[in-house]
Amino acid sequence: MISSLSNSKVKHIRKLKDKRYRRDTGEYYIEGIRIFGEAVQNNADIQTIIYAPELLTSEFCYQLINSFAHTDRVIQVSKEVFQSISKKENPQGIGAILKQDWIDLNEIIIGNVGIWLALDSVQDPGNLGTILRTSDAVGVETIIMLDNSSDPYDISSIRASMGSIFNHKLVRCNFGEFEKWIRSNKLSVIGTSDSAESDYCRYEYPQQVILLMGSEKQGLQKKHFELCQDVVKIPMVGRSDSLNLSVATSIVLYEMFNQRRCKIE
Amino acid sequence: MISSLSNSKVKHIRKLKDKRYRRDTGEYYIEGIRIFGEAVQNNADIQTIIYAPELLTSEFCYQLINSFAHTDRVIQVSKEVFQSISKKENPQGIGAILKQDWIDLNEIIIGNVGIWLALDSVQDPGNLGTILRTSDAVGVETIIMLDNSSDPYDISSIRASMGSIFNHKLVRCNFGEFEKWIRSNKLSVIGTSDSAESDYCRYEYPQQVILLMGSEKQGLQKKHFELCQDVVKIPMVGRSDSLNLSVATSIVLYEMFNQRRCKIE
Repeated sequence: MISSLSNSKVKHIRKLKDKRYRRDTGEYYIEGIRIFGEAVQNNADIQTIIYAPELLTSEFCYQLINSFAHTDRVIQVSKEVFQSISKKENPQGIGAILKQDWIDLNEIIIGNVGIWLALDSVQDPGNLGTILRTSDAVGVETIIMLDNSSDPYDISSIRASMGSIFNHKLVRCNFGEFEKWIRSNKLSVIGTSDSAESDYCRYEYPQQVILLMGSEKQGLQKKHFELCQDVVKIPMVGRSDSLNLSVATSIVLYEMFNQRRCKIE
Repeated sequence: MISSLSNSKVKHIRKLKDKRYRRDTGEYYIEGIRIFGEAVQNNADIQTIIYAPELLTSEFCYQLINSFAHTDRVIQVSKEVFQSISKKENPQGIGAILKQDWIDLNEIIIGNVGIWLALDSVQDPGNLGTILRTSDAVGVETIIMLDNSSDPYDISSIRASMGSIFNHKLVRCNFGEFEKWIRSNKLSVIGTSDSAESDYCRYEYPQQVILLMGSEKQGLQKKHFELCQDVVKIPMVGRSDSLNLSVATSIVLYEMFNQRRCKIE
């Protein structure tokens, strides 16, 4: 059992709260019974399981841990060590280090039918996680994150995704790479903007479509508009000229999803 | 200029971060140039303006403050005092105490056409604020908060509402009062649940309708279902059986809004 706060593994976990360190190592940390259970059930790439017997009371978790007992991937730590790692007030005593799971643009399998989502420079990890959750609900497997998008492996994003992060194919690239990929595969990109003319709910989306959403503050920029086959707007009658990014994304994704459902049935 | 950290007004503002204190006093605190501007422009009930000349550089804000110069509602504070009030790292030097604006159920004007929203025990103030923002966008004026709902005047809710909090009519009541009001006015309540049979996007909503949403964790309870004329579901094809509460609420509100728009045009 590790009881030293300065143990190298313990230090490593603490550093995984830092976005840059996560990126350099390609790993991330999750914590709590529910999310750990989701990770195991979804065959996420678990590198190390960390648990504190003094804190962990969940029989379910002990069963999951047992299934890893034949590996060298399980570490026991003292209560004090676990508390030094955890961000929570009353930690449940279970956590894990996982390997991030990114794919390249070229690995995306392009069928004749499908919805993909591309996000430009999304800032808030909570918004990002909420978008992952809705994407899962409408069957969007692949999410492409452009330029300086927030880290989906941030703890707030993982929490908001409610475990759907383990189900997605995630791509990270710059706009130039994305543009080249779009053009060479002749894909249809649809953007959203409050200045667009087409009403999002009257627009007939292509069977193979990429929804491109701008960042919270800026929305889509000129270069994005130029790549779009069409741009749709979500009408609003109130004072505000915008919706929360995760709400706007979800509303358009559901419209695309609904159009497909209605045609199929 | 107030430069004492223990000035009673300064203490009062600090205490307004506490939900119970806000409830007891009927006041709340906002901070920052944008939200202060929104409050003034929307004629929110401003009790006191607090600004720190050493921090505030916005010409726009000084103009707004000037329009209150003839009142006794403007207070200058030192940089140190403002920093002691603020939750932000680099405060902009402008804040205000406002009076909360609640109406009674009986004050709601019931026309033949309209959408109202009732939220049961919503927990996360960020979700609540995001819901207020979408409600504004689809023209839902009145939001009814049942039982132990989160405080819309929490700083996270105000921020997420993007100023739309100043535009809403807010009602707070317990379920019994709500039920009585619904029955005596013969209003149609529509709930949502993943176990419902009706698809939310194929359901024809009444012209006068109240959308009732359950809490993040529990969804709707038995007593809520009994009050509903119908319950609709938002179909999902992924692993998860639920969406983020603000997303689910927004998706159904937009469907109601779209049905109205399409009929009118």
